[in-house]
Amino acid sequence: LHPLPAVLVGTWSADGTPNATTAAWSATCCMDPPCVGVAIRKARLTCRNIERTRAFTICVPRSTMAVQVDYLGIVSGKDVPDKLERAGIHASKASLVDAPLLDECPVVMECRLREALPLGSHTWFVGEVVETHVDEAAVGQGGEVDPMALDPLVYCTGDRAYHRLGGKVADAYEAGKAISRKG
Amino acid sequence: LHPLPAVLVGTWSADGTPNATTAAWSATCCMDPPCVGVAIRKARLTCRNIERTRAFTICVPRSTMAVQVDYLGIVSGKDVPDKLERAGIHASKASLVDAPLLDECPVVMECRLREALPLGSHTWFVGEVVETHVDEAAVGQGGEVDPMALDPLVYCTGDRAYHRLGGKVADAYEAGKAISRKG
Repeated sequence: LHPLPAVLVGTWSADGTPNATTAAWSATCCMDPPCVGVAIRKARLTCRNIERTRAFTICVPRSTMAVQVDYLGIVSGKDVPDKLERAGIHASKASLVDAPLLDECPVVMECRLREALPLGSHTWFVGEVVETHVDEAAVGQGGEVDPMALDPLVYCTGDRAYHRLGGKVADAYEAGKAISRKG
Repeated sequence: LHPLPAVLVGTWSADGTPNATTAAWSATCCMDPPCVGVAIRKARLTCRNIERTRAFTICVPRSTMAVQVDYLGIVSGKDVPDKLERAGIHASKASLVDAPLLDECPVVMECRLREALPLGSHTWFVGEVVETHVDEAAVGQGGEVDPMALDPLVYCTGDRAYHRLGGKVADAYEAGKAISRKG
């Protein structure tokens, strides 16, 4: 199922080191309360960190961060504890949850763990979004996140490559009215 | 969290009519066994249908289907039972599960319900993918789905619009090695 936004999942390791892994499998799960879900391979350090802290951040990188994002997905924090520093990404404390904000990402959501669903190779973690940080440069005139300004990185499983977002095709909640009007 | 692939969720209604709704909130949840998840508003007919049949299909439309996809999201099968027919989309029987294939979609996954997680306004349904149908035109030379040939419809919550997928930025599992090599 793709394309999907490549996101970084931020957690604190037991020794206080910030950690992040790349996840292509994430989604909004609920509107009210706002929840996001993310699939993490069970062997990952991130999995262990979330279970300990019961918190994580979902950080949305720009398309210009493709190399760093790919690196954070290839390398494990178990082998390279300072992987974030090596990738040139800075972490700071979140305001409401026990997980790091990744400063270079234009959108960061602070998530409190709500459900952990072991499915097989991966666990699906559902977190309630209790705080969101958005870079002003990614906000459009209407006060909403402008996807073209955000310029997110999109992962495609088919060609195992990162893409940019393409141009607009149609307005949602509007285009379909053409069929309704036909009666 | 966006961009996200706009997908159609196919179900059979109790009277045997095929139904489909548009869902922007979906994701792969697990690799082994392959599972996908999708968030459906509780009031939706789709929600009731999945709970009855314990099955659904995830159908990935092309970007050229934006008007139909938007229509299927705006209109409820409770009010317009023949909404699929009005949208000019044809349904046929799936091979392994009790849910319809939408013939116009280049990728269709047959899902057997595994978990239903009520979260608030939405229920997060996790289905195990037991069969996948892919249009030959969307398959690349390596036998994998070619995202540019598939030309999926990407929904962005920020500008409430459908976009196409943009060009490739970097190869995954490759680009990040530049940081590993620096040591």
